[in-house]
Amino acid sequence: MAYFKAYSHIGVHEEMLKDHVRTNTYRNAIMHHKDLISGKVVLDVGCGTGVLSIFCAFAGATRVYAVDASDIALQAVEIVRENELSDKVIVLHGRIEDVQIEEKVDVIISEWMGYMLLYESMLGSVIFARDKWLKPGGLILPSHASLYLAPITNSRRYQDSIYFWRDVYGIKMSSVMPLAKQCAFMEPSVETISGENVLTWPAVVAQVDCYTIQAPDLETITAAFKFTSMLQAPLHGFAFWFDIEFNGPVRQKVKKQASQPLDVDMEISSPGNKKKKQDVSIVLSTAPEDAPTHWQQTLLYLFEPIELKKDQIMEGSVTISQSRQHARFLNICLKYFTGDQWYVKESVMR
Amino acid sequence: MAYFKAYSHIGVHEEMLKDHVRTNTYRNAIMHHKDLISGKVVLDVGCGTGVLSIFCAFAGATRVYAVDASDIALQAVEIVRENELSDKVIVLHGRIEDVQIEEKVDVIISEWMGYMLLYESMLGSVIFARDKWLKPGGLILPSHASLYLAPITNSRRYQDSIYFWRDVYGIKMSSVMPLAKQCAFMEPSVETISGENVLTWPAVVAQVDCYTIQAPDLETITAAFKFTSMLQAPLHGFAFWFDIEFNGPVRQKVKKQASQPLDVDMEISSPGNKKKKQDVSIVLSTAPEDAPTHWQQTLLYLFEPIELKKDQIMEGSVTISQSRQHARFLNICLKYFTGDQWYVKESVMR
Repeated sequence: MAYFKAYSHIGVHEEMLKDHVRTNTYRNAIMHHKDLISGKVVLDVGCGTGVLSIFCAFAGATRVYAVDASDIALQAVEIVRENELSDKVIVLHGRIEDVQIEEKVDVIISEWMGYMLLYESMLGSVIFARDKWLKPGGLILPSHASLYLAPITNSRRYQDSIYFWRDVYGIKMSSVMPLAKQCAFMEPSVETISGENVLTWPAVVAQVDCYTIQAPDLETITAAFKFTSMLQAPLHGFAFWFDIEFNGPVRQKVKKQASQPLDVDMEISSPGNKKKKQDVSIVLSTAPEDAPTHWQQTLLYLFEPIELKKDQIMEGSVTISQSRQHARFLNICLKYFTGDQWYVKESVMR
Repeated sequence: MAYFKAYSHIGVHEEMLKDHVRTNTYRNAIMHHKDLISGKVVLDVGCGTGVLSIFCAFAGATRVYAVDASDIALQAVEIVRENELSDKVIVLHGRIEDVQIEEKVDVIISEWMGYMLLYESMLGSVIFARDKWLKPGGLILPSHASLYLAPITNSRRYQDSIYFWRDVYGIKMSSVMPLAKQCAFMEPSVETISGENVLTWPAVVAQVDCYTIQAPDLETITAAFKFTSMLQAPLHGFAFWFDIEFNGPVRQKVKKQASQPLDVDMEISSPGNKKKKQDVSIVLSTAPEDAPTHWQQTLLYLFEPIELKKDQIMEGSVTISQSRQHARFLNICLKYFTGDQWYVKESVMR
């Protein structure tokens, strides 16, 4: 059984390391902010194999605390030793809430994002670490994250999973279709689509400012949307994806009030924000039109496609909330009005 | 939870149906033996969605008993109804040992093969059905199966899973390699290799004659082998694959004694067998050099590659036995001598 456990660890970390978009963007971000890292103290929240901690050491960090609760920390110790960085990178095997760090840090780095940004994310640990150890004016990488939603069309997926059953080697199997729909589309599906599947500009569902966000902000997120289909096409569902930005601590000036709910439309419509967007130098995107990552996209498929006309409007709201039964699960409720009808799609990401 | 269960069912059956090599070869075999099926009674052991039963009905079978213990039988009932074959195809939802069939059958058809032929195979159910219901001189499809073993080289797999850790974005991670080897190579691995990975002609590990095989024959299978590498290349492991033949009942004439162990060399070296080989009209192969199937190949990787010279001999034996703790598991023990040294590779297919 120990091997199985180790396997899942090693396999997961191998997959993340082999996600070159992810790892190279983090490395670029660290090198981009070299001046803020060199000679400084860094905390890596959820260090895994220690790759980001070692990049920070390469960037000149004086000391890096690399924290991970899982047994992969034991491998990180060996990797740090192998790279002769044991004097700089201190691996701590334990939950961020339990480890002892006897000094404040200048930089927090973390690769905390889960599927659709928030599923099994470690953002709560980053918030905890920030509030406990980050010096005022310190750097957080990534600094910001945005979660997007857009309507999509995907006839190939419908063909493969549903219409496939209409004729199987000359045998009618349409009677399987209702079950096939439930099996394929009851729950959110993590898969890779392309820009061609996306019917219009995405809505921003959440914007996370890592300097200011508080844990209660993550419990329930609601956003309104109004989509106008750019194509005449069947609406097969909606896709979530996210991007993260690696801005310097200068963005901290436009801090939101902690008590303010995540209201995105307001923030992106402010002229100050537009200016900031131009400053963004390094972004890790998991959008369908960008290079695929191991996060892929998260799809909510409809049981019945809706035939959209060009310029048809879909207006509604999405709510993402932590399940009360299982904090790990996300409840997703999508309500929208189109073609004179209301629709509701509820699903659980488990 | 019902959906999960159903999902695994539907997903598994979708994968099998979409394996065109598998499904088309079965259809071809049924049509090839149309004369022996038309006007006859058929028993389909482990019918799944009922696809083979319906092919038999299309081939003119008077009556087909389609038996499956899993809930997929409920879908099979609907599919049979949808194809207006309810008067011909009788779906029985239950274990083959428990169902009531009030007549003898002329034909038994079954897609019983598991990974490396024997893992989670339903051959035991076919034997039970044969002994209980098959008329003397009846047809069994498939009629024969052969399991093969060959030494392989696969530098790409070693590079991807093991040597990858030597240098990860400029960071040394060789300390992960021992764990990575255990994780990747402790257990048999089901994956697709190509003919280029195979170092020489395969050995036959087992030959199954579906007309004569008895359940105890399957408990432990041992075969000796002597391989001569056709290439100078690193030996990375050994691959299992199988093929099945759809011969008519004429082969029954050369019945082996039931008490005789599975001794393959003897059988393939007999002139009678060579003659039979020429009669083989329809074969479903899962060999690396043939079109891939959902069975792929089953690989046993060595922790340390062995550098083979051209014409170097590997001589030894393989034993496959049902685990005593879990009848579902297979213990595989490979012993071989090459380059003046003995090696043993033991693994469990679970």
